[in-house]
Amino acid sequence: MWLFYLCITVSLALQTSGTRYQPNWKSLDARPLPKWYDEAKVGIFVHWGVFSVPGFRSEWFWWDWQGENPPDQDCVDYMDENYPPGFSYPDFAPKFHAQFFDPDYWADIFEASGAKYVVLTSKHHEGFTTWPSSYSWNWNSVDIGPHRDLVGDLGKAIRNRSLHYGLYNSLYEWFNPLYLADKKNNFTTQHFVLKKLLPELTDLVLRYKPELIWSDGDWEAPDSYWNSTEFLAWLYNDSPVKDVVVTNDRWGAGCNCKHGGYYNCEDKYTPGELPKHKWEKCQSVDTQSWGYRRNIRLSELMDLPSIVQDLVKTVSMGGNYLLNVGPTSDGMIPAVFEERLRSLGGWLSVNGEAIYASKPWRVQTEKATVPVWYTSNPTGSSVYAVFLTKPESYTFQLTEPLTMETSTVVTLLGNPNPLRWAPLHPSGLIILLPELPFTPGQAWTLKLDWVL
Amino acid sequence: MWLFYLCITVSLALQTSGTRYQPNWKSLDARPLPKWYDEAKVGIFVHWGVFSVPGFRSEWFWWDWQGENPPDQDCVDYMDENYPPGFSYPDFAPKFHAQFFDPDYWADIFEASGAKYVVLTSKHHEGFTTWPSSYSWNWNSVDIGPHRDLVGDLGKAIRNRSLHYGLYNSLYEWFNPLYLADKKNNFTTQHFVLKKLLPELTDLVLRYKPELIWSDGDWEAPDSYWNSTEFLAWLYNDSPVKDVVVTNDRWGAGCNCKHGGYYNCEDKYTPGELPKHKWEKCQSVDTQSWGYRRNIRLSELMDLPSIVQDLVKTVSMGGNYLLNVGPTSDGMIPAVFEERLRSLGGWLSVNGEAIYASKPWRVQTEKATVPVWYTSNPTGSSVYAVFLTKPESYTFQLTEPLTMETSTVVTLLGNPNPLRWAPLHPSGLIILLPELPFTPGQAWTLKLDWVL
Amino acid sequence: MWLFYLCITVSLALQTSGTRYQPNWKSLDARPLPKWYDEAKVGIFVHWGVFSVPGFRSEWFWWDWQGENPPDQDCVDYMDENYPPGFSYPDFAPKFHAQFFDPDYWADIFEASGAKYVVLTSKHHEGFTTWPSSYSWNWNSVDIGPHRDLVGDLGKAIRNRSLHYGLYNSLYEWFNPLYLADKKNNFTTQHFVLKKLLPELTDLVLRYKPELIWSDGDWEAPDSYWNSTEFLAWLYNDSPVKDVVVTNDRWGAGCNCKHGGYYNCEDKYTPGELPKHKWEKCQSVDTQSWGYRRNIRLSELMDLPSIVQDLVKTVSMGGNYLLNVGPTSDGMIPAVFEERLRSLGGWLSVNGEAIYASKPWRVQTEKATVPVWYTSNPTGSSVYAVFLTKPESYTFQLTEPLTMETSTVVTLLGNPNPLRWAPLHPSGLIILLPELPFTPGQAWTLKLDWVL
Amino acid sequence: MWLFYLCITVSLALQTSGTRYQPNWKSLDARPLPKWYDEAKVGIFVHWGVFSVPGFRSEWFWWDWQGENPPDQDCVDYMDENYPPGFSYPDFAPKFHAQFFDPDYWADIFEASGAKYVVLTSKHHEGFTTWPSSYSWNWNSVDIGPHRDLVGDLGKAIRNRSLHYGLYNSLYEWFNPLYLADKKNNFTTQHFVLKKLLPELTDLVLRYKPELIWSDGDWEAPDSYWNSTEFLAWLYNDSPVKDVVVTNDRWGAGCNCKHGGYYNCEDKYTPGELPKHKWEKCQSVDTQSWGYRRNIRLSELMDLPSIVQDLVKTVSMGGNYLLNVGPTSDGMIPAVFEERLRSLGGWLSVNGEAIYASKPWRVQTEKATVPVWYTSNPTGSSVYAVFLTKPESYTFQLTEPLTMETSTVVTLLGNPNPLRWAPLHPSGLIILLPELPFTPGQAWTLKLDWVL
Repeated sequence: MWLFYLCITVSLALQTSGTRYQPNWKSLDARPLPKWYDEAKVGIFVHWGVFSVPGFRSEWFWWDWQGENPPDQDCVDYMDENYPPGFSYPDFAPKFHAQFFDPDYWADIFEASGAKYVVLTSKHHEGFTTWPSSYSWNWNSVDIGPHRDLVGDLGKAIRNRSLHYGLYNSLYEWFNPLYLADKKNNFTTQHFVLKKLLPELTDLVLRYKPELIWSDGDWEAPDSYWNSTEFLAWLYNDSPVKDVVVTNDRWGAGCNCKHGGYYNCEDKYTPGELPKHKWEKCQSVDTQSWGYRRNIRLSELMDLPSIVQDLVKTVSMGGNYLLNVGPTSDGMIPAVFEERLRSLGGWLSVNGEAIYASKPWRVQTEKATVPVWYTSNPTGSSVYAVFLTKPESYTFQLTEPLTMETSTVVTLLGNPNPLRWAPLHPSGLIILLPELPFTPGQAWTLKLDWVL
Repeated sequence: MWLFYLCITVSLALQTSGTRYQPNWKSLDARPLPKWYDEAKVGIFVHWGVFSVPGFRSEWFWWDWQGENPPDQDCVDYMDENYPPGFSYPDFAPKFHAQFFDPDYWADIFEASGAKYVVLTSKHHEGFTTWPSSYSWNWNSVDIGPHRDLVGDLGKAIRNRSLHYGLYNSLYEWFNPLYLADKKNNFTTQHFVLKKLLPELTDLVLRYKPELIWSDGDWEAPDSYWNSTEFLAWLYNDSPVKDVVVTNDRWGAGCNCKHGGYYNCEDKYTPGELPKHKWEKCQSVDTQSWGYRRNIRLSELMDLPSIVQDLVKTVSMGGNYLLNVGPTSDGMIPAVFEERLRSLGGWLSVNGEAIYASKPWRVQTEKATVPVWYTSNPTGSSVYAVFLTKPESYTFQLTEPLTMETSTVVTLLGNPNPLRWAPLHPSGLIILLPELPFTPGQAWTLKLDWVL
Repeated sequence: MWLFYLCITVSLALQTSGTRYQPNWKSLDARPLPKWYDEAKVGIFVHWGVFSVPGFRSEWFWWDWQGENPPDQDCVDYMDENYPPGFSYPDFAPKFHAQFFDPDYWADIFEASGAKYVVLTSKHHEGFTTWPSSYSWNWNSVDIGPHRDLVGDLGKAIRNRSLHYGLYNSLYEWFNPLYLADKKNNFTTQHFVLKKLLPELTDLVLRYKPELIWSDGDWEAPDSYWNSTEFLAWLYNDSPVKDVVVTNDRWGAGCNCKHGGYYNCEDKYTPGELPKHKWEKCQSVDTQSWGYRRNIRLSELMDLPSIVQDLVKTVSMGGNYLLNVGPTSDGMIPAVFEERLRSLGGWLSVNGEAIYASKPWRVQTEKATVPVWYTSNPTGSSVYAVFLTKPESYTFQLTEPLTMETSTVVTLLGNPNPLRWAPLHPSGLIILLPELPFTPGQAWTLKLDWVL
Repeated sequence: MWLFYLCITVSLALQTSGTRYQPNWKSLDARPLPKWYDEAKVGIFVHWGVFSVPGFRSEWFWWDWQGENPPDQDCVDYMDENYPPGFSYPDFAPKFHAQFFDPDYWADIFEASGAKYVVLTSKHHEGFTTWPSSYSWNWNSVDIGPHRDLVGDLGKAIRNRSLHYGLYNSLYEWFNPLYLADKKNNFTTQHFVLKKLLPELTDLVLRYKPELIWSDGDWEAPDSYWNSTEFLAWLYNDSPVKDVVVTNDRWGAGCNCKHGGYYNCEDKYTPGELPKHKWEKCQSVDTQSWGYRRNIRLSELMDLPSIVQDLVKTVSMGGNYLLNVGPTSDGMIPAVFEERLRSLGGWLSVNGEAIYASKPWRVQTEKATVPVWYTSNPTGSSVYAVFLTKPESYTFQLTEPLTMETSTVVTLLGNPNPLRWAPLHPSGLIILLPELPFTPGQAWTLKLDWVL
């Protein structure tokens, strides 16, 4: 595998064909994003790993407990109060049982949520692979803990439902001694990259053919350390997913929001104005953590209206929305998350027309009597105005759309009847709303056909 | 403790005073129910014990696995697949950690739910006491597992919020060898009752002064075996809670729905017509179990509208509603349950006037355009009509109330404005509804002042 | 069972027959000791229980850790360093696996040791019963841990080899709340004795028919608290082992060395002169503990010569010798103990004639060139002089025996040839030793037939 | 580290200096064995690793259970009966506590045994390193289990006592996926060797400076796969132990008994005649296993006479004797092993003169009245005849030595007095033995000064 990778990178360095991507950002950044991704709009992010066993603080538990200086006192106290002295993070691995993990049931939930793609952590910063990596012996989910190929098993179920399957991969591993040695050498050595990261990542791609690689953990070292451009050139030129794969922008310090495929920028990033480059907002139902926490309290969770609002604003601004849930170490998606996802699906089943395969409109939002966010269909023939609060009154006024006297048609998604409206000058219109149906999402969509 | 009990029963047998309860059903059944209970209407039931550790199937796991003949195959398989051969139920006890148990937070949730009383399992059929019973050495929550007095700790928090505190207690213990010996003797011996049950139960009352004893597990033996009437006579005459304590009706085979305090009859009992005796419906958010299950799926849970409907129907029929949640062995109330309880509280904050301290009206329900259930205030001067579905139309017709032309006032709870209405003949009225506010409970209350 | 016991004690109180033992020491102490016991001379003591799991400090671990005031710091430190905070002693029970327990192999070792009886802890001060006691639910070896009747299983194997089977039973239980309550009442109440101890002990006798009851843990309360005389009267009059059972002297504060069957007096008691009453010395191969310790060091163990010397001195003084080993929680007798026992058996196979069924001689010991200890056969026709060190010279002089010129015959056990000897005056003889055979026990026996 | 290693091997390949070892057997085999090794004669072998946790069957447990085809049924049954389904070998690692590991106490025992060197498993075939290898992340004794550098800690204690310190290292790792991939490729690839084995082994040498590398696990692949000659050239030319280090002969299929340092040939190898090359016999006190077994029975252990005989024969044939013990996962050397080692030391304290720094004599053994084995001192001025059974008679005849009438002196080691003897013809002598002292080793040494 590793030799194979070496040969490939060598051959890449030698070739000069104009139709192939070169291992530099100029060439790689020019690659068009495969079309499925922008159309999908909604994805589910799944953080699952050994961190799900302590289920405390967050998926950064190991770091907070033993990496930070000074350490997080809550984490230290939690371990001191509940585990024997000397208990180490790897000691958690055998307790990762996943005994109830039913990939089909998970995939059912994800499908019901209205999401079009799913991204699972194949390896978080802890370094534990949720698949049988040869380069992570006894620190993967087949050798220890679940004794199961979580990446593979979920992948099959996801694809059986025609959802797209992506894999999260952390470049760095907090405590991997090979990485720490390179770091100590100011990243002038690449033992970790050559002996662990790239052979493993290549193997991951060949085995599971992910349509999305959600790279992370890049920030401590430049992309030249990670050999990111070489990897991406291989991925785009020669890998089995070269035509469909999408990646994000975390490929080295300074890369995010600048290079790669779509941009994540920061976690939970929210742009102030319409970005020029395709982007994605990742957000977690549990506002405190991406991974499962045993001591979740309701007030720490996003409620459905917040999720819908966040999704609508993101899509209106041209982004995709990747909503995260953290399963338990038993292999269950907690019911409160299941409820959020299914309810989101309920909302999308009525309002999805404004979301999927939509394009940003010329205006993203306006402050009507209540906040309104716009999207449009790809041709621009229909504009969608999503309002996120129930208006006080039945007359609803929009300032931005330019109506066309005879053609413009206004409807409320979920209601077949055209609504009565009147034009405003110099632009905008006033619409007579019907009674709004109950929806736990508390957001409704006006569809405006033939406005400018 | 035990001698004390013996003395008491002996003294009871000897006394003849007319103001004291006699250890027979005629005398005991005549005791008036302390007033707080009927006024409370809504309670929270909490099933917590060693069964929360496997968290599989239900709190009957031990029985299903090893008591039933033939055993429940799912339980057998679950144990075979996840535990070593020979692993026994008591082996689960050290894994009952309760490390996140925060009684104040629990009590906050219960208070926010609108409940007025809380009933915790002090001992389920497994025999494990969640308090340091001297009669259950090394099979209680202080000696093993949580190492904490769960009954005591929760009680303090409950009472700090002026909620009433009740304790569930199972008379029988599936696998207690003393009980099994008595059973083998066709209950002609009472080793279990005299050496374990009664000393323990008496101690429980003296220590925690519960205002409600939710007795269970009575059905295999007659009340004469359990010495139930003797115990109740002591409870009503001499115990520290003699004036406030409420009990239910599970005091021996054939007792339920016939003797004791209020009636539970069967679990989740729903009467067909207005019962003549005060009763309580116990119901669980998880329709499959009273105790926590690790593998809960959303579809198995009651949603909020179902809970509200169930509550309204129960109260309309004169019952109390005891809604159950099963905390985890970690000591958390799962967020999905927390959400149900807080949302119920939200509904009650608007509609509680129709519930708390209400009385059944002369009619319980009528089939209007949508189902309607009635309650009244204690004086009968106000009648509440709760409808459990959103009506299609704004004109809403009730057939049963007799209006008084000048006096009758109709309002929608949560809305201060009187509604327009018109009388119907020979009875009933037609009401013009305002727009109904969104409520996740999906039930609304019309208050009718001065109807007959 | 308990009622049965009550009835029996009541009936005992009523009867007056002169052939039955009365529940008072005068009557009970007059009972002759069943003959098998004095003839057996050598027994094996086995301490096995939950204490074998921590295997630290000794079988008193629980007390040293949590009962002593102040606690033993080593025990506290050991727990603090190796277990989570809040870990309790009962939490050890599920780790008592006994997976290698092979009663037949144990019995083989005991038989090979030359012992004639075996005494197993049926319940030590921790209260955990190694048999399925109905009065110790979930705190016994069938409900939790080994899931096996250790007392029963070992008993069968012991008796298949015609060894006698005895059971150790602790009267008190350090932390039993019923006991603690009685203790707090200055033993003016007997809840523990009536509800736990006596029903259980009676059951133990009926189930396993032990030929020896090794009572212990009596010292905190008088025999009147324990109802010891009533129990013994039942044991001697009506129990299924009434004719064969032997007991010791630990039946209440002040009883030891004074009442009961044979006397143990203190642990490891060594009398200064020939006792008037049959006695037993219990001794442990591990000088630091009766129960298994995980951190045994060789220097803490008795070597074989020390054991042989101890045995010889004890028997010479009319005692029985009960040699203790502590099996592991895995169910193994550690090899170093197996070696001691088998080697002891090797020594006894040659020298047992001086031990089994022997009687003290008129002189117990003399200081010859090396220490010599005497026993005799029951008729006094043979006297055995055991010397515990290899003499420097081949001429060996004994001062005490009175020889008879023509009759006295001297041999070395294990060597058929008569030895040359010459009388001394006024008493004693001088013997010409052969070369002494190697024996790891380093003790040899001269048999003197027809000396006075 | 790895690059360092590469550079070294490259530089080795380039250099031509005649004083350096070349990476070929001809050159390497010509290296003289450092002198300390042959003089040491007695070593202690210590097998300690994750295999000590199950402590079942042997240190090959993982292979027997899951590698063999068909698997060993006893191992399969043991796991099935005592562990949950799906429990994997790596799941054992957190149970390797080593809480009682006291390197000084171990070293005391080893020193008391008379051994002059100690060899610890730094990594057995399971791949678990007992030191914090960067190349074995989370599969080493610091990351998981003991959380301690076992190799380092024992090394310090060993060297504080002036014993030599060696490390066992298995080349292959049964289940390492990198190794399995190379194996699948018929060892035409070297991923395992280049990414794991050699970087790690080099690091081991640099960190701990072992004076002996006990290589093992070589047999499935040729030395060219392992890069053994390159490694040894580095070890002999440039490593910090180049002048003192000793290695054995397990460096590739076909190497044993042919190449490398001293020869082990097979485990427990016993040559039929005097080997021409320095060799070592490794032997285990537990005849069934090198690693600890929880279910050791005494009959499976070597007794002291067997050990002494084995040692004497080995040294007489020019070998070193490496006697193995398996510590528990708690970190203790079982007392029965401690006893064997200390007793061996007792024998050597008297007879060591015949062992340490000895040379084979011109004759190795003769069949006298009892078997006799010869050694000599380095100059040949003294010859030692060790006899392994107690002779029947006091006259003891040796046929081989040629005496010198006036010069030859015969003594028994441990006894200062010269013995009477007479010459035989044409060779040999007859000796009058004194009474032989008791020795649990049951072997005695005659020292013959000035014989030929």
